[in-house]
Amino acid sequence: MGHLVDVAGERGFVFDCGAQVKSLPVAFQTYGTLNADKSNAILICHGLTGDQYVNGSHPVTGKPGWWEEMVGPGKVVDTERYFIIATNVVGGCMGSFGPKTPNPLTEKPFGIDFPVVTICDMVRAQVRLIDALGIDTLFCVIGASMGGMQALQWSVHHAHRVHAVIPIATAARHSAQNIAFHEIGRQAIMADPNWCDGHYYEHNAFPAKGLAVARMTAHVTYMSEMGLQEKFGRRLQNADAVSYGFGADFQIESYLRHQGTSFVDRFDPNSYLYITRAMDYFDLAADFEGQLSKAFTDSDVRFCVISFSSDWCFPTSESRVLVRAINAAGAEVSFTEVESDRGHDAFLLDVPAFKATLRGFLSGQAERLQVFREER
Amino acid sequence: MGHLVDVAGERGFVFDCGAQVKSLPVAFQTYGTLNADKSNAILICHGLTGDQYVNGSHPVTGKPGWWEEMVGPGKVVDTERYFIIATNVVGGCMGSFGPKTPNPLTEKPFGIDFPVVTICDMVRAQVRLIDALGIDTLFCVIGASMGGMQALQWSVHHAHRVHAVIPIATAARHSAQNIAFHEIGRQAIMADPNWCDGHYYEHNAFPAKGLAVARMTAHVTYMSEMGLQEKFGRRLQNADAVSYGFGADFQIESYLRHQGTSFVDRFDPNSYLYITRAMDYFDLAADFEGQLSKAFTDSDVRFCVISFSSDWCFPTSESRVLVRAINAAGAEVSFTEVESDRGHDAFLLDVPAFKATLRGFLSGQAERLQVFREER
Repeated sequence: MGHLVDVAGERGFVFDCGAQVKSLPVAFQTYGTLNADKSNAILICHGLTGDQYVNGSHPVTGKPGWWEEMVGPGKVVDTERYFIIATNVVGGCMGSFGPKTPNPLTEKPFGIDFPVVTICDMVRAQVRLIDALGIDTLFCVIGASMGGMQALQWSVHHAHRVHAVIPIATAARHSAQNIAFHEIGRQAIMADPNWCDGHYYEHNAFPAKGLAVARMTAHVTYMSEMGLQEKFGRRLQNADAVSYGFGADFQIESYLRHQGTSFVDRFDPNSYLYITRAMDYFDLAADFEGQLSKAFTDSDVRFCVISFSSDWCFPTSESRVLVRAINAAGAEVSFTEVESDRGHDAFLLDVPAFKATLRGFLSGQAERLQVFREER
Repeated sequence: MGHLVDVAGERGFVFDCGAQVKSLPVAFQTYGTLNADKSNAILICHGLTGDQYVNGSHPVTGKPGWWEEMVGPGKVVDTERYFIIATNVVGGCMGSFGPKTPNPLTEKPFGIDFPVVTICDMVRAQVRLIDALGIDTLFCVIGASMGGMQALQWSVHHAHRVHAVIPIATAARHSAQNIAFHEIGRQAIMADPNWCDGHYYEHNAFPAKGLAVARMTAHVTYMSEMGLQEKFGRRLQNADAVSYGFGADFQIESYLRHQGTSFVDRFDPNSYLYITRAMDYFDLAADFEGQLSKAFTDSDVRFCVISFSSDWCFPTSESRVLVRAINAAGAEVSFTEVESDRGHDAFLLDVPAFKATLRGFLSGQAERLQVFREER
């Protein structure tokens, strides 16, 4: 049902870490139709635990795609007008080249021998994919969280291949606090004896408990304190009084446990290690002597930067740093901080001001570039 | 070297959960000298991972006591003027009745069969201790974080036994977000197979990895985002470039790992479960139909509430809730939000405005109560 293209081609693919591979399968989905002059393509980049299934029933979970709210016929990212491409990132676990992929040398899954992936690697694979699809220039790249990092990477290293970029709830580099929370998650996974030094696949084992703790930790950072207080507060799960035990007395405990246990059914623990590492390593200014504005010198890309007021994982201050740098380079950027009490997760939810911002920017850019002009 | 008193006495001790015990040893330290009319006693209550060693070399770690900064001869809490009592909480692991204590029924450590402890239980044991010391009324109870919860509990349930109470960086009830982070820590410990369903003592095992992950998680919440950024940022630990691996590339990772591994040398994993649970259960308004101000009705206690501006674990907003309730009850309260970028941990550090606030309040109350009048 999904598409799979090997983007390594004859030249192979070289990772930032130096590893070279002869085969690099990228799994992707498309929605809508590419127009005659191939000017209506939008790439949607997913976050840490997302995938290529933005719309429709997910083949593993059976649940709706992660961005149903935004993508579909008549929706903000309108599949009746745009041709949407969504890939599974390199290092992921939904069909793209990742730790679950068999290592040609051993014929067993790579596991922890998989090369460490960067956001740059993920984006280079996406560039290869649009090459394979015969698309010269994307109308837009949209991404939130780690997806926003990819969108930014497009705007810097592949600026001539994209007209507009929408980085949402993201940052130009991962903060110390975010690295810290990721490290906790990784330590939880690697502390689980079922991780088997990264080769659990061959041992018929699975570090489910470690992965669940990692997910729970990350999940708290995706919600706002206010949101947690409103949604759960100190409400008890099943009783009028506390149990004087270590069961899930509080609704928030029950909710977190559910988040942990349902996650392990759909995600690969090693992918969690690799993808969190890619985010930690992300620092857009690193190639520009630490001067972020230099990353955007002479950029023709139009930026629409969006943050959410209660997001403390990727706070508005990070978006401001980004916007100041883009401005300082003289590039064009619009910036909106959307009011929401739903924390980082707001980008997944029905937030009208967020939708209006995205819709407005996309229409404006489509008009500027005459994506839908009659003669096409 | 430390003191140990069995406070159960002839009547035994009944926990909030209903468990009854015939013996309840409480380990404590004292500093300074109790004056003739026993009016200069200050009880210092410790936080989640603290203990009775506020000053001097710690017998387990060899490091200085956790509140050397504040307590000692000539310091803010002056051991030349005050008689300082510091207990290890019930449920703790530094000598007081806790999960490591042998269960008289089995002659093996209680482990997870230890009764679930509340802040109320901890404080009732402290009341028994001052009974045993022949002290009728404490000059002051001081506590930060969970210690602040104990201080508040004193002010509400034992108001006639204390003149002044200083709740620092604390709250009248544990928030959903804090319960969430505690639950993550508990899940990490209980997921470690060396936890052995809570009875690792008999299995010559120790869930060190789980406890380390729990500590790392909590530790991040004790620091501010700004503090982490300033102290560590994205600085690398040993190299000019990233290693493309899962070692501790970043200083923040190395620091967190150190926090985790050094913690397991001094703390009991089951105590971590019990004490976090006590904090989660804490809700001062629960006994007053959810109306916090009723907890302070007719209170003669003088309160000095202190918060730190960058503390997001126990934010200033929580202290304001407390102060409003005390005010609404007509009790006397002074409130200071101390500016600091060091997050929740600020209470452990040399923060001059914090020290000045504490010093001023203590002197004022000592004068009001004529603690040091000549004729004594």
